[in-house]
Amino acid sequence: MIPEGYRDLLISPALAHVATIGAQGEPQSTPVWIGWDGDHLRFSQTKRQQKYRNLRNDPRIALSLVDPLNPYRYLEVRGVVVAFEDDQERAFLDSMARKYLGVERYPWHQEGDQHVTLVILPQHTSQMG
Amino acid sequence: MIPEGYRDLLISPALAHVATIGAQGEPQSTPVWIGWDGDHLRFSQTKRQQKYRNLRNDPRIALSLVDPLNPYRYLEVRGVVVAFEDDQERAFLDSMARKYLGVERYPWHQEGDQHVTLVILPQHTSQMG
Repeated sequence: MIPEGYRDLLISPALAHVATIGAQGEPQSTPVWIGWDGDHLRFSQTKRQQKYRNLRNDPRIALSLVDPLNPYRYLEVRGVVVAFEDDQERAFLDSMARKYLGVERYPWHQEGDQHVTLVILPQHTSQMG
Repeated sequence: MIPEGYRDLLISPALAHVATIGAQGEPQSTPVWIGWDGDHLRFSQTKRQQKYRNLRNDPRIALSLVDPLNPYRYLEVRGVVVAFEDDQERAFLDSMARKYLGVERYPWHQEGDQHVTLVILPQHTSQMG
């Protein structure tokens, strides 16, 4: 699904800017850490966060990534959230800490955070550069 | 409207990732060059582009910018497009070429492009870092 020439963007530590739909149908945009296993994209939220609640109401999502070395090369992915995976052991968050921070454990967990991994099925891409 | 401590992000050559609503109510996300005059945000589109058509149908918009020097510092702005300004003389596009490319004239104009400047009224911001 992801064009071969743009997969490096998902492997690089580029942030993904995630677009979701809010309660009044309005767009929202936020940068997130993004994981890719060859099929699905994943990112982490706590249950209190806006994007988690948005995606529970409307699972449609878009995300865009820019090449950190070339601002005129980018990938947009549109798709749907197909699963909300419990991550209380923080296995996924730790993998993101390795990718983006170069440390073994996610350092910003706070008492009471309920971590959920959102699993995205890509359905459409566009790209430039 | 824009918090004072985050205005530098709109002056820096950070790209803004723009979220809009497509024809089926789905989110879309794309990086753009962004201008700010102290009140309104602006970016350029041609009339053929998807975001232009999206915003003609639904003027609600969100955009997020990350500090190029600190990926944990970002600004999200939500608002509405309040004007579509003709830019056939490319005055706005040239100002974006100066900001992002350091050149006087926008170098990628193509015969037939109908340039429009989208003027955004910010209504809500959130920020981190």
